[in-house]
This record gives sequence, C-alpha cells and structure tokens, in this order.
Amino acid sequence: METIYDLIIVGSGPAGLCAAIYAQRAKLSCITIERNYMSGGQVINTYEVDNYPGLPGINGFDMAQQFRAHAEKLGAEFVEAEVENIELLENGVKKIVADGKDYYAKTIIIATGAKHRTLSVKGEEELSGMGVSYCATCDGAFFKNKTAAVVGGGDVAVEDALFLARACEKVYLIHRRDELRAAKVLQEAALSNEKIVPVWNSMVTEITGEDKVESIKLQNVTTKEEQVLSVEGVFVAVGILPNTELFQEILTLDESGYIRAGEDCKTSVEGIFAAGDVRTKPLRQIITAAADGANAVTAVTEYLIQNSAKVDKNRGI
Amino acid sequence: METIYDLIIVGSGPAGLCAAIYAQRAKLSCITIERNYMSGGQVINTYEVDNYPGLPGINGFDMAQQFRAHAEKLGAEFVEAEVENIELLENGVKKIVADGKDYYAKTIIIATGAKHRTLSVKGEEELSGMGVSYCATCDGAFFKNKTAAVVGGGDVAVEDALFLARACEKVYLIHRRDELRAAKVLQEAALSNEKIVPVWNSMVTEITGEDKVESIKLQNVTTKEEQVLSVEGVFVAVGILPNTELFQEILTLDESGYIRAGEDCKTSVEGIFAAGDVRTKPLRQIITAAADGANAVTAVTEYLIQNSAKVDKNRGI
Repeated sequence: METIYDLIIVGSGPAGLCAAIYAQRAKLSCITIERNYMSGGQVINTYEVDNYPGLPGINGFDMAQQFRAHAEKLGAEFVEAEVENIELLENGVKKIVADGKDYYAKTIIIATGAKHRTLSVKGEEELSGMGVSYCATCDGAFFKNKTAAVVGGGDVAVEDALFLARACEKVYLIHRRDELRAAKVLQEAALSNEKIVPVWNSMVTEITGEDKVESIKLQNVTTKEEQVLSVEGVFVAVGILPNTELFQEILTLDESGYIRAGEDCKTSVEGIFAAGDVRTKPLRQIITAAADGANAVTAVTEYLIQNSAKVDKNRGI
Repeated sequence: METIYDLIIVGSGPAGLCAAIYAQRAKLSCITIERNYMSGGQVINTYEVDNYPGLPGINGFDMAQQFRAHAEKLGAEFVEAEVENIELLENGVKKIVADGKDYYAKTIIIATGAKHRTLSVKGEEELSGMGVSYCATCDGAFFKNKTAAVVGGGDVAVEDALFLARACEKVYLIHRRDELRAAKVLQEAALSNEKIVPVWNSMVTEITGEDKVESIKLQNVTTKEEQVLSVEGVFVAVGILPNTELFQEILTLDESGYIRAGEDCKTSVEGIFAAGDVRTKPLRQIITAAADGANAVTAVTEYLIQNSAKVDKNRGI
C-alpha cells in the first residue's frame, strides 16, 4: 500500500518553506519536493535582503539556509527531485511523478515560483548581483545617489524607474520602442519626473564592468547607432515567467501564465493550492510569498477536515 | 505651512512595522504613530513564536524589538501618541489628531490590530487584574503551584494552557464545544499533559471571589447542569476584537468590526489602507500581518503616483 500524504509541497522558496513550517505545526504528514539541491528559489541569488522584518541586511543565501533549517528543526522532510507530472485520481487523491517515482497526496501546494526573463546579453549573467538586478524593490536602496538604468517599457519597468528615482540621482529608462507599454498614469508620472531620462528605440547589447557594473552599451534599433551610458545599476524589467508549464493542463492560469488563486491560495481544482510568486497576486516579495505558505496550509487543513475523522477526546470533565 | 506626509502609519505591530520598513525603502515621507511606549502589538505578550520563517523559537518581546530596530535602522520615525480622530479634507489630504496635535498625510495605513475579547460575565471586570487575565505570558507566573482555568478552544487558549501547566499545579481548559479548534500539534500536547484537565461543552457564567478570584461557575451547554470549580486564576482566550472604533464612521467594516479590505489593503476610502489583524482576511498571523504591510505600501505608492501625474512627453535621449 502506497503512502498517501496529507500534503505534498512542490518547491521550496519562501512560500514552500513557510508552508512546510506551518504543515509541521499542524501535524500534517507532508513532504516537500524541491528540484534543486538547495532551497530558497530566487532568494538564493539575492545579494542582500533588507525588507524582511527581523532579518535586516541578510544575504539571500543565508536567508534561504535559515528558512530551510527552521523547517527541518520542526521535522519537515525534503525530497530532491523534479516533478514531471501531476494526475488527479479517484476520491480526490493526487499522484505526483518526480524523477520517475510516484508520490500520492490528498492535497498539493504548488510553490514553484517564477524566473525572470533575461536580456541574454554579454555581462548580464557575469554581473548579476553585482549591479545587475531583476528587482528594484529588493535592491534599489543600494543605489542611493547613484545612476541606474531600467530596461523595459511595461508597468513593472516604469514602476521600477519611479521607485528608483526616489533614491537615485538619475535613472535611465531604456526601451526598444518609442513609447511605453505601461499604464498611462505610470507613463505620465515617469515622463514628468526630472530624474528619469527615457532612452527611446534602444536595446542593450552589453553590460560592462570589472566586479561591478560600470556601463551599458546600447544600440538604436532604427539608426543602428551605438552609445555607452555610465551606470552603476541595471534593473532588468522585461517580464517574469511563472514556473507553471506542468500545470497548464490541470489548472486555470491567467494570460501571463500565473495560476489563478486569491489570498486563500485556492486554485480551480479542489485540494490543489498555489502559494507565492506562481499565483496571481498584487506584490511578489519574500514576505508576501511566506504569508502565502501560511494561508495555503490553513486552506489545506480546512480541506482535510472536511474529509477526515475527528480527534480522540476521552479525557476531561 | 504644515507638513503633509506621503504616508502616516497608525499602529506598529508586525503590519505597521513592515509598512514602515517598506515606506523607508520606497523613500516616502512617513511617520508611524504608536500609542504604546513599545512597538509589537500583541506580539509583545507572546511567550514564544515558532512559525515566523527565519526566527525559530523567538520570544515575542525580542521579536517586537527586532522588528522595530529594523525599521529604525532604515530611518523610520515614530511618534508616541494616541490617535483621536481622522478627518478627510479637500484634495485627498487626511488630517489625524493624536494627543491633541494635528498631522497631515496624503495616505494612511491603519494597522491598529486587535485586542482580546471578554467573556462579559459577572465578576470578570471586577476581578480583572485580581486573578482574571487576558495574557498568560504576562501573568502566568503569579499562579505558580496554584490552580488556574483557561477559557477558549483556539490556538491561543491551548497555548496558554500549555504555558500555565509549566508553573501551575492544575489547569482547567474550559471550552464550550466537545473539541478544540487549535492546531493539532497543540491539541495533542494539551490532551497528553497530565496537568491540563479539559472541561468540555461548558460556558463560564460567573467568576466569584472577594478581592481575588476564588472560583468559577460553569454551565454545561447540553445538559444545562452547573458546576463550580475552585481556581485562583482565570485566563480568558476567547478571541479578539479589532481596534476599529475610530474608523467606523469613515470606513466600511464587516459584521465583526474588521475593516473591509482585500489583499491589496484598499479600504472603502481612497488613500486609506488597512493592514494586519484589523482587516478582513483569512488568517491572522505575524507573517500574514507583515505581508500586509508590504502590500499596503505598494498600494500607497500606486495611489501617490496616480495622484501626482503630469504630462510631459518630448523628453529623453
């Protein structure tokens, strides 16, 4: 007879790890499947996290280790494997295939996170965390009174530029078209901000610097002219991609590929919950991902109560 | 000319403190008004917090200090005062009166949290502080080797019973249903603790004593039978009431008095946001309160951008 877990958590970034912590405290039988050797997701590659209350200025790598250690201290069990398939069986049981092995659970929390779209230019990967960032809210404060560039033309890019303009001396907003895609209100705010310098019709061709970002090379897409801008930070905001390829057949996704789920983390399938960056939500941050882990386990517990026996209570007066 | 802040945060529990952290990082001009000498809200009185990822087994008092120190390290400014009134002025400006002084802001985040519910039975108010308590962590030590009762069936009630059982000779756990609502791990711990005696299906009808608690009267909700238990302490843990008296004229509240606001923390009034235990939400925990602080500041930033936009397009390089 195969073990049927109360809960299987897929992914162990902040959402998955907080879910693991809450699952242990709720005494659920639970495993967390993580495809990487390390937990933490996008956090691992964050140079410094300064907006998670109680852990000021912590290195992302250390933070990921602390979260994982916390879950393990409470007895959480991790399996290193890549989930290949999820199948809905009879009686609400879900089958997960990971690295060729079958796992069964009454509920699943999907916490597979997202990845940033990259520019795929020379210097980007090499200088990632050394001036190249994919999160202005996370890293913007490190560029106070400095010059930064934001690459992109959508809502996030323009919001990032506005966010950075509060602290930075100058912010280039580099976009490959001659107008922004962002909401009008954001466009207007950016274009009336004296610190924000739009750079139209331009693509980044290279990010340069020794150990830290020093400049970016741009090419004008119409004239093919090149120019070099001195910057200390490059914020790439050309979109993020949720890790939801596996779930598109089973769950309802939004037009950007996020799993449709509200604050209670409930998806379109009963007993499957989505927590963290992978779901539709207003703000993707460590603290909001972790909160999802707690909310998702609460929803799991409620779901399980509907199908399970009650606690023995043969004591008392 | 009076200062008009971008943001005033009211209250500094986990939601208010996380909002203060995010506001500093967003470079908003902001103050946080807290009526108590210390920040932390209900956290201050929590003996041990073990479900906030990254800070396993931390004392609530220490946690509150760490959160506040984090906000202050980033430059957050605190005002110790009690908010008496909020008024909506022209042009979206809000006026806050606190300890007789006027403060002005473009936006407000209400993070005033919640307080303990009372039993509303004879003797409760009269003997408050003389054996009747709402905080086991604060007052438990006074009942060493004595008999106490905890009233309630949720996480807090069971945690209180477990806490008291360390020092007390006997702890009655009085609940009006025949099973606890608390997390399984807590239930198991309480029901296997020899010092804890559950009293099922019972309501407290009176607390009696001269100058100090001597006994409690209970009624069985099914049989209507009455019984009297000799106790020296009564710990009331029957839930919380949101601190929303000040806002009921301005904002839409739900039937329990919580401010109606979703995950984006937007209330019924533009520019006023509600974060943490004070708003309608699926789960009230430190991690979910802190997440609200981040979400609320994001909503504040969006609101400020929308209300300050001016057009100026032919700029850029």
